[in-house]
Amino acid sequence: MTDAVTTYLDEHEGEAQALLERLCRQPSVAAQGLGMPEMADMVESLLSDTGFQTQRLYAEGAPPAIYGELRGRSPYTVLLYNHYDVQPAEPLELWHSPAFEPTVRDGKLYARGAADNKGEIAARLTAIRALRAVLGELPITLHWIIEGEEEIGSPHFGAIASTYASLLRADACFWEGEGFGPTGRPELMLGTKGLLYVQLDVQGTGIDAHSGAAPILPSAAWRMVQALATLRTPDGHIRIPGFYDAVLKPSEAQLDAIADQPNMDAELREAFQVQQFVDGLAGAALAERAAFTPTCNIAGLVSGYTGEGSKTVLPAKAMAKIDFRLVPNQDPEDILAKLQTHLKDQGYDDIKITTFGRAEPVVTPIDEPLVQRIAAIAESYNGKKPAINPIAGGTLPLLGALRRYVGVPGLSVPGNPTYWANGAHAPNEHIRLDDLREAVRFNCYMFQALAK
Amino acid sequence: MTDAVTTYLDEHEGEAQALLERLCRQPSVAAQGLGMPEMADMVESLLSDTGFQTQRLYAEGAPPAIYGELRGRSPYTVLLYNHYDVQPAEPLELWHSPAFEPTVRDGKLYARGAADNKGEIAARLTAIRALRAVLGELPITLHWIIEGEEEIGSPHFGAIASTYASLLRADACFWEGEGFGPTGRPELMLGTKGLLYVQLDVQGTGIDAHSGAAPILPSAAWRMVQALATLRTPDGHIRIPGFYDAVLKPSEAQLDAIADQPNMDAELREAFQVQQFVDGLAGAALAERAAFTPTCNIAGLVSGYTGEGSKTVLPAKAMAKIDFRLVPNQDPEDILAKLQTHLKDQGYDDIKITTFGRAEPVVTPIDEPLVQRIAAIAESYNGKKPAINPIAGGTLPLLGALRRYVGVPGLSVPGNPTYWANGAHAPNEHIRLDDLREAVRFNCYMFQALAK
Repeated sequence: MTDAVTTYLDEHEGEAQALLERLCRQPSVAAQGLGMPEMADMVESLLSDTGFQTQRLYAEGAPPAIYGELRGRSPYTVLLYNHYDVQPAEPLELWHSPAFEPTVRDGKLYARGAADNKGEIAARLTAIRALRAVLGELPITLHWIIEGEEEIGSPHFGAIASTYASLLRADACFWEGEGFGPTGRPELMLGTKGLLYVQLDVQGTGIDAHSGAAPILPSAAWRMVQALATLRTPDGHIRIPGFYDAVLKPSEAQLDAIADQPNMDAELREAFQVQQFVDGLAGAALAERAAFTPTCNIAGLVSGYTGEGSKTVLPAKAMAKIDFRLVPNQDPEDILAKLQTHLKDQGYDDIKITTFGRAEPVVTPIDEPLVQRIAAIAESYNGKKPAINPIAGGTLPLLGALRRYVGVPGLSVPGNPTYWANGAHAPNEHIRLDDLREAVRFNCYMFQALAK
Repeated sequence: MTDAVTTYLDEHEGEAQALLERLCRQPSVAAQGLGMPEMADMVESLLSDTGFQTQRLYAEGAPPAIYGELRGRSPYTVLLYNHYDVQPAEPLELWHSPAFEPTVRDGKLYARGAADNKGEIAARLTAIRALRAVLGELPITLHWIIEGEEEIGSPHFGAIASTYASLLRADACFWEGEGFGPTGRPELMLGTKGLLYVQLDVQGTGIDAHSGAAPILPSAAWRMVQALATLRTPDGHIRIPGFYDAVLKPSEAQLDAIADQPNMDAELREAFQVQQFVDGLAGAALAERAAFTPTCNIAGLVSGYTGEGSKTVLPAKAMAKIDFRLVPNQDPEDILAKLQTHLKDQGYDDIKITTFGRAEPVVTPIDEPLVQRIAAIAESYNGKKPAINPIAGGTLPLLGALRRYVGVPGLSVPGNPTYWANGAHAPNEHIRLDDLREAVRFNCYMFQALAK
């Protein structure tokens, strides 16, 4: 990092925090339609003030995505992705300070969206402003898209990316980013799992019946239980024929990267409040299972009387919600078709299947040159070997659209002031202000290094 | 029937209806503690006014049962059982007239409790009054117990019957009664199934987790589904070892009685809104299945997210409510022990079992002389062969206490102004006024016939 930039950042200490507080003070809850136009205005004016040529990208029914272009010295172009919406703040009573009043305690800034992901917007803005102030121009060219629906599954991001694909062209894409691990190792993340989310509905009788008639009536609850039992063995193997056909074996490089991750077993046990993980897994074997195993999870299940005490009822209907997390190269459409066929073959063709979400798994290979380049830049930043996560357990539906319509390699790079205990999606979301400072510095360093 | 009694009844037409309206105007919802002392007062004063020596039977925590004795010409003593509590009236908005304002429309009297079972209290009272008015005294001796907790499962009836067993001594016991079938056949019912009601609870993780962690976390929902699936085959056979061991084969007389029941298939299909019954059963085979088959019914089931749309969560816990309907000679304690052993043997000893109810099956054999005597009286009343239901599908927990502490044969006799579509436990509960008139007449006839 040039001394001039470091000096500038030291002299302007507090700018990133001020930006973040401004961003967090504006509610922007997509799920509740709360503050979205105001937030879009603020984001556009912040980009514009930072030197970006901005425009709004529209899709029917969606808050606008804010887009900006800032030409730098080098034509090498990075597409940055962020989102300006946040999760609902509820349950409000569990917050120690109001969710939309940024509050600093013990070196941490608490607010909804501080970690997910207004912190990174503030860090990127601050870094870009510092580089332009010191160097006169950015070392590389940036395209930046900031959408407003990530927390509700980016339902219109595909439409936006398709309509405005020509704007999004770049040499590389940096998704919502990672931070630095507990020992200071820079973190990279190369993709997320796919998702197929379905609801199953069974109707037995037309109305709830007195359970005295149980000997002669079809039972929706039993039918659901027995249909579900055909989907998965007690030890977790998914019994839908062909479910595993497309699964790509992890590469040696991916397995090595997994084994090289910091061991978080104790933190995870505490976070999930479990004595142990399935099959007594620990360490690299646990991380490997988490990374490369597709799942069939029951997210919800309901039938009949669920209150206190007893009610002798034979429920008319039963409902289950199931999410499948998919790994490369499983295809949600293909898995849906196989689920339908399986239920039909097992005699459950009366079960209604409603699809609520489908997203493809998106994973950038470790040997992709961009990955190796970012890893090298990150390692040269602080001398610590980066921890590379080949695939995260969650799903980012927008990654599929980026891959389809932008088509350049993407990944999550360090420079996001976040850490594992940030309370994202929960009460008392926060960042550590030290992480924010570090994130700004890393972004400055990386944008310069990419120009070389 | 003596002409004098008939004449009296004709001259006092409307008395039963007036009594019933008075009874129904007083709410008495045990589940909601609504109007219980006022109802107990009214019942006691009605019995007293009718000539009974009354007293209140107490058990800690229960509304009093009202008890009365009325010595007749013959020492032959019948214990009558009724209950003065009713089901909650909710949902109120579905009533066409207010639940506690008795209203006559089209020859039917609508009110909560009209059918279940204030109608029979009114009919029995009216018959007793008429017999005493015409004959000077009752032909037989009556003991009458009217409890206040039947609609909540008679939780204190055993304690009351045990404490006051000496009062309840009789030669026969008439439970809450039956009416006349669609073709005018008198109906007798000889018992009810037993019940074991349990709740199963599974805890997986300590908190709901992001379903991205599904590859490594224990799933409460899956564990529940798979535990349930061990309890029952898809075709309804219960897989708990020994579950059927104590099941008594129905007697030839019981099977004949079942085959002789009026065919209600069409009415049942409409009531339950089903196209067909399990295994395509119909007619006598359907009635036989309903009568003599013990069941394991899922009354409730819940885990995780059950709202609209999708939430990708791995639920921390899962809960199921199960009712077992038991047939002679299954014992709820024995079945509970077998369920516990089965779950343990299947590896599910972490599943917590809570018991909410247990009641033994109580069935009086068809060849019991009392049954044959009542059947003969009923047939001589209107010349129609009685329809005898050897065992009803529901459960009356109080029958176990009556059998244990009174010990005389019991059954449900005609004389209750009820019919299959009376809306008991539902909005717009009602009786047909013609049935009320018939019920009074039958009671007069039966009490006289029993003295012979």
